[in-house]
Amino acid sequence: MSAAKGFTLYGSWLSGPSYKVGLMLSLTGQTFAYRALDLPKGAHKTPDYLAVNRYGQVPALRHGDFTLVQSNTILDYLSDLTGKYRGGNAATTWHAKEWLAWEADRLAPGVYRSRFYNRFAPNTDPAVIKVYRDAGEAGLKVLDGQLAKTKWLAGAEPTIADIGCWCPVAYLEEAKFALGDFPHVKAWSERLAALPGFKLPYDLMPKADVA
Amino acid sequence: MSAAKGFTLYGSWLSGPSYKVGLMLSLTGQTFAYRALDLPKGAHKTPDYLAVNRYGQVPALRHGDFTLVQSNTILDYLSDLTGKYRGGNAATTWHAKEWLAWEADRLAPGVYRSRFYNRFAPNTDPAVIKVYRDAGEAGLKVLDGQLAKTKWLAGAEPTIADIGCWCPVAYLEEAKFALGDFPHVKAWSERLAALPGFKLPYDLMPKADVA
Repeated sequence: MSAAKGFTLYGSWLSGPSYKVGLMLSLTGQTFAYRALDLPKGAHKTPDYLAVNRYGQVPALRHGDFTLVQSNTILDYLSDLTGKYRGGNAATTWHAKEWLAWEADRLAPGVYRSRFYNRFAPNTDPAVIKVYRDAGEAGLKVLDGQLAKTKWLAGAEPTIADIGCWCPVAYLEEAKFALGDFPHVKAWSERLAALPGFKLPYDLMPKADVA
Repeated sequence: MSAAKGFTLYGSWLSGPSYKVGLMLSLTGQTFAYRALDLPKGAHKTPDYLAVNRYGQVPALRHGDFTLVQSNTILDYLSDLTGKYRGGNAATTWHAKEWLAWEADRLAPGVYRSRFYNRFAPNTDPAVIKVYRDAGEAGLKVLDGQLAKTKWLAGAEPTIADIGCWCPVAYLEEAKFALGDFPHVKAWSERLAALPGFKLPYDLMPKADVA
């Protein structure tokens, strides 16, 4: 990978979707420059950043002169680019993408919102907290049920499905869920942690720009 | 397309994601058999259907002996298969997929939940209703802002981004949003309606099995 084709990740050290892209880069052996966005200060809503990410969200990934946003789309892109974590055949790749879509719909909102309310907005209406808590619980049960049957989510080897679905799970304690309540998820998390390049969020994500 | 490689859509006539796949098939000129799932009766949670869709959700698409789930993944699959609505180059295809990921995250939950509470669960806690209503409103504003600048969401021609983001918009009235409040979305919806094969949800989706 030439310098001109290097990666720059725009993210926040607190952001699960930013971690998702950082982890994929790390697991595929890519180094990357980093631009730290101070979300509480609204750095993601400035005109400069909106020119990078039209949605005003983190993460974004610049690869040479191409910029891509949406963490699961970036996982798809990076696995396509590197040929890694893509499954051994086309069917497995499609099933891995199904899991990413499921994660965005049924796992991430429940876990990340529960984490947000717990850490940053504890006075949120209890009825709202319950909606997301129940969603997170239901999603974790589906994940645990699958991992009771198969070692990895799609196919015989780890894929972007596992990387994507792992990221909310990385924050379970902060969301006040107990990993021990989902024993197959716990065992899978240990298999993931053994992959070369694996790092936990606060070990991986820089708090300031990295050139 | 030989009979052995025909399509069978599993869905519900009330389901926006089912409509999304039906519309993509219709816009790409594909005929399909249809299996109607009675969601209030729990048809999506039976062992037979869980063997089709591990998540117990609609839709699912069978293509020959291959089964795919998650509506946005199916759009990606069908555009890859047919070469239609995929954008004119790789960058546009990736940007179209970004919009699908954004739709699942920032548009569909707010609109579909608002529709659900309005039609089927009006006694839901007002704080919960407000969370989703605000999310739907915010998503529609982002969509309207983009469509103020570009005719289609990704690239110069309609893509899966437009088909995917259209589907929640098709149910705005049922969700008690006014299409007229989002004039660029309204104009775009008229461009979409002019595409060959376009149909509205209740004109397209069967209420019973179709062989």
